[in-house]
Amino acid sequence: MAAVRALVAPRLASALPPLSGRHHALSQRAALHSSAPRPGARVALVLSGCGVYDGTEIHEASAILVHLSRGGAEVQIFAPDVPQMHVIDHTKGQPSESESRNVLAESARIARGKITNLAQLNAANHDAAIFPGGFGAAKNLSTFAVDGKDCKVNKEVERVLKEFHGARKPIGLCCIAPVLAAKVIKGVEVTVGHEQEEGGKWPYAGTAEAIKALGAKHCVKAHVDQKNKVVTTPAFMCETALHHVHDGIGAMVKKVLELTGK
Amino acid sequence: MAAVRALVAPRLASALPPLSGRHHALSQRAALHSSAPRPGARVALVLSGCGVYDGTEIHEASAILVHLSRGGAEVQIFAPDVPQMHVIDHTKGQPSESESRNVLAESARIARGKITNLAQLNAANHDAAIFPGGFGAAKNLSTFAVDGKDCKVNKEVERVLKEFHGARKPIGLCCIAPVLAAKVIKGVEVTVGHEQEEGGKWPYAGTAEAIKALGAKHCVKAHVDQKNKVVTTPAFMCETALHHVHDGIGAMVKKVLELTGK
Repeated sequence: MAAVRALVAPRLASALPPLSGRHHALSQRAALHSSAPRPGARVALVLSGCGVYDGTEIHEASAILVHLSRGGAEVQIFAPDVPQMHVIDHTKGQPSESESRNVLAESARIARGKITNLAQLNAANHDAAIFPGGFGAAKNLSTFAVDGKDCKVNKEVERVLKEFHGARKPIGLCCIAPVLAAKVIKGVEVTVGHEQEEGGKWPYAGTAEAIKALGAKHCVKAHVDQKNKVVTTPAFMCETALHHVHDGIGAMVKKVLELTGK
Repeated sequence: MAAVRALVAPRLASALPPLSGRHHALSQRAALHSSAPRPGARVALVLSGCGVYDGTEIHEASAILVHLSRGGAEVQIFAPDVPQMHVIDHTKGQPSESESRNVLAESARIARGKITNLAQLNAANHDAAIFPGGFGAAKNLSTFAVDGKDCKVNKEVERVLKEFHGARKPIGLCCIAPVLAAKVIKGVEVTVGHEQEEGGKWPYAGTAEAIKALGAKHCVKAHVDQKNKVVTTPAFMCETALHHVHDGIGAMVKKVLELTGK
């Protein structure tokens, strides 16, 4: 087991890479402008597990992190320390009845270990918050998948959304996650994609109806609610190629960073 | 539970998005050149679980898929149907003794459900194969994490590498995955990053020694072994910002697609 110890165990702490691009961006800015470097925006990313059907949609989270890194943001990743609603065997699309997993522990897979309990997230320490999609947002961060418009939102998620909104700090959400803002922020404008399926292109079209039932205004494409500083994009709610999802999320992240004014 | 049924259950099959960008690329090419569209390269992606410390490194896999989509490739995702060596609690970096997980089922989280048993991968049906990193490559696809240069490689992984190599079809590998090629393909040139730690920048420098002990030539940066058509890049073996990892993987994917001649 010597090789395991050499390669894995003692390296875990030191080998965690920066998922933030702040250092790079600072030095690049300094080189370009030869003035004092501007601090990057401090962004809180809130995850809900690891895997599209019972947690965070992996490619959305990764795209958000790539674009935040490129934008020079200083990222801290959070998730609630609660059990998942259930565990889905992603090969079958069916619940794995005998298993239970923890949202914080599974989210740590996306965060490469660097993750903090959502209960410790204080909006005063960040300039923006971003929520990727995946059914975890509708199963672990809220009960939307079960209760639709009558859903409950995890109390820490609700507190965090209200803190950022109250402090006029931008909130980005994609895929199904906009339902969280629709439930918590009165009258917010969000998008989860189109209202008609259009031959399978928008398979979650029904969600738009539920958004309207929550009292929020549903918009048909990526949207910036300037008044509420809420930026939303459909991501995987639209049947398109992965690089379009990646680029659409890039536009959302860029807008969130702009709205921080950093 | 009506909302669950409406939102989740019946949609699982139809809602699976294309992780391949082929359709887009075909129409774009047709528009640009007004000639018959060229078929995209058919690429097999081989995963080893879901999470850097016991499976596939999530951001590497996602970056590969984004770049393959952008390059118009037709992607099929595979993983071996075997138990993981162990399950690491990514919040602690420690094994979770009571748990066991299956490599194919966990890899399906990255594949959004569209995954095939590696035993069914036939090089004749693909133009290239790509292996992302993460300790799954050294724990589930081989025993490198435990046995170092004396490691054994999963027999399906060994067969697949030999089939692609024998057919002169390109193989891309990143992070720790190049050890698989180093073990299976005699005299191959690969990179896993630098040979010295350089103050923490290359925390896995010791791996380079093991690569050499396997009889392979170790190179200090992203590398194309033209003779063997093996393309390797350090990815997370280097302590750099995530968008640099993403872009480095993009260069690897682009080179692999070029080598297919498609």
